[in-house]
Amino acid sequence: MENMETEISSLGEFGLIDRLTRDIRLVNDSSRKGVGDDAAILEYGGKELLVTTDLLLEGVHFDLRYVPLKHLGYKSAVVNFSDVYAMNGTPRQITVGIGASSRFTVEHLEELYSGIRLACEIYGVDLVGGDTCASRSGLVISITCIGEGEKGKIVTRDGARETDLICVSGDLGAAYMGLQLLERENSVAAGHKEGFQPDFAGKEYILERQLKPEARKDIIELLRDNGIVPTSMMDVSDGLSSELLHICKASGVGCRIYEDKIPIDYQTACMAEELNMNLVTAAMNGGEDYELLFTVPLADHAKIEKLKGISMIGYITKPELGCALVSRDGAELPLRAQGWNAFINPSATPDNSDSSDNSDNPDPSDNSDYQR
Amino acid sequence: MENMETEISSLGEFGLIDRLTRDIRLVNDSSRKGVGDDAAILEYGGKELLVTTDLLLEGVHFDLRYVPLKHLGYKSAVVNFSDVYAMNGTPRQITVGIGASSRFTVEHLEELYSGIRLACEIYGVDLVGGDTCASRSGLVISITCIGEGEKGKIVTRDGARETDLICVSGDLGAAYMGLQLLERENSVAAGHKEGFQPDFAGKEYILERQLKPEARKDIIELLRDNGIVPTSMMDVSDGLSSELLHICKASGVGCRIYEDKIPIDYQTACMAEELNMNLVTAAMNGGEDYELLFTVPLADHAKIEKLKGISMIGYITKPELGCALVSRDGAELPLRAQGWNAFINPSATPDNSDSSDNSDNPDPSDNSDYQR
Repeated sequence: MENMETEISSLGEFGLIDRLTRDIRLVNDSSRKGVGDDAAILEYGGKELLVTTDLLLEGVHFDLRYVPLKHLGYKSAVVNFSDVYAMNGTPRQITVGIGASSRFTVEHLEELYSGIRLACEIYGVDLVGGDTCASRSGLVISITCIGEGEKGKIVTRDGARETDLICVSGDLGAAYMGLQLLERENSVAAGHKEGFQPDFAGKEYILERQLKPEARKDIIELLRDNGIVPTSMMDVSDGLSSELLHICKASGVGCRIYEDKIPIDYQTACMAEELNMNLVTAAMNGGEDYELLFTVPLADHAKIEKLKGISMIGYITKPELGCALVSRDGAELPLRAQGWNAFINPSATPDNSDSSDNSDNPDPSDNSDYQR
Repeated sequence: MENMETEISSLGEFGLIDRLTRDIRLVNDSSRKGVGDDAAILEYGGKELLVTTDLLLEGVHFDLRYVPLKHLGYKSAVVNFSDVYAMNGTPRQITVGIGASSRFTVEHLEELYSGIRLACEIYGVDLVGGDTCASRSGLVISITCIGEGEKGKIVTRDGARETDLICVSGDLGAAYMGLQLLERENSVAAGHKEGFQPDFAGKEYILERQLKPEARKDIIELLRDNGIVPTSMMDVSDGLSSELLHICKASGVGCRIYEDKIPIDYQTACMAEELNMNLVTAAMNGGEDYELLFTVPLADHAKIEKLKGISMIGYITKPELGCALVSRDGAELPLRAQGWNAFINPSATPDNSDSSDNSDNPDPSDNSDYQR
């Protein structure tokens, strides 16, 4: 195993998946669309199903020094529901695989499960399968979600067309700033005696966005109620830049988005100021927002304008124009897929020795593309 | 996290899952059966679907010192297919989640994937979703399989009735003996200079059973072609004893099986002799056989008798008679669910510090219940 050939980090998560799954031919009639979107599309008995899977590993995706187990369970389930909503579907079932080392007790796992079950209750999803096993190194969570789509109304990444409006729900960058805050308080606490209480006053929103995100079921319903079917859609898990590039690549188009249209909460802005980080970079690349990014025909402009909680941030162009962010002073900055890449930017600190994947950590504050 | 309450190992895998998932109410019409069988049962558009998930962790479920990555990929997929066949269904799609530390290269993951893809090709299953991420500690594989059942013909664990015949396909204990052989050769090799070649002559079968098991699609087809619908069925992943107890508990019945009817290959027997291990114990508790254990009405006796590759090993009794193995000398030995328990008997050696789950390792050779 020591003979290094191609390092995984040289391809990145998406390049790796492309390489591992290229040339796959689907042989079953029930397999409609495989790897390459938020969820696979199956068809059984005339119903369209969506299937998505996520693997969450301690020390890579979460850090138990500051993430309560119940919150972790909730978030693990919700991020899967988000993938199903991002296909314009409704999540119905999940299966849960848990690997836990001996430092976890039954009560710890009950805490974790209580979060998963709460998310299921709130979103009307059934937990139908579970697998638990020992782990040699911390906590491993694997969740697969099955959802249902309305025939002909599933929305994929590849339907964006020139002149379509680019929309995003809620606001961006808050979850990333919440993570920065937690990491800072954690390192401050490490330098104090026991009993140190971090001060989170005025920062509740960004903390909640990091620790207990919600999937935008409400936005899917809002669009449906207003007769709007997006031409393409994704959820913002890796960061707006990365997701927009996915949509543009899959749809064979370009895009322009406007810096001053990117929705950012004031707590996010304050935290960026406090930490001396570039706000737009955080909003563009922070990730874990779980907002919906989608495109609609230009003709839906008036309808979208009336809807609360949705921002129009730009439009789709011909492919030859490329993908760019238009800054406040009118400069066009090419979008880069730097996003939140689990292969090169683990969100947490290693808790054992088998790790050296963070050698190329792209801290958004180091990125000069969006510096103003 | 240090405040120990209930140790996970005190409940075991099945006790833990029971505790974590008790009282779950299913709210969606499409959720027909949740946790508690080889796979969950869903119904969409009049079709019955099966969903099963497995988490495989390095150092717990496999040891890369003697398992080639391609074999590991193959086995990871096949064990999931086996769960779907065990419900009398046909596997159709899988999603694959992989976590890999930086000691793995792209080529390593291609090897792993080539095994997964080979299994998919052979069994006619589509790989429709993938997730890859960094891991802090070795390799994590999570596979979810979706299968299809014929309406009214899905077979669960709870249908065994008094006087039913207990049947098992193929032979038992070989995979466990293959593992013992690999572990022995590995420790012998560790004491030699480089270039040591273990001698596996005459042991090919037990090695293949461990490294490249197959799911018994052929048996499902054989039963179908002969008009036999089992009353209950499971695959033998944790060991015959453990699976039989599951069936009896779920069905509310007891059972008698006969030591001299348990199918054992001669290579398995030779290896047990060579290692001075109790053969019946290995066959009863070794696990990873991926054979099908099922019950049929007594009236099917003549039909079953004619089928190659299926052994009748006993019969279902009233519950008050309990579950027992009848030894060659006529003694009744109560069955115990010791099986292959990933929480207390990891098959491989730890490769990092966060591990102490093997404190209560029930080596089958220590078990006196089945000593003759």
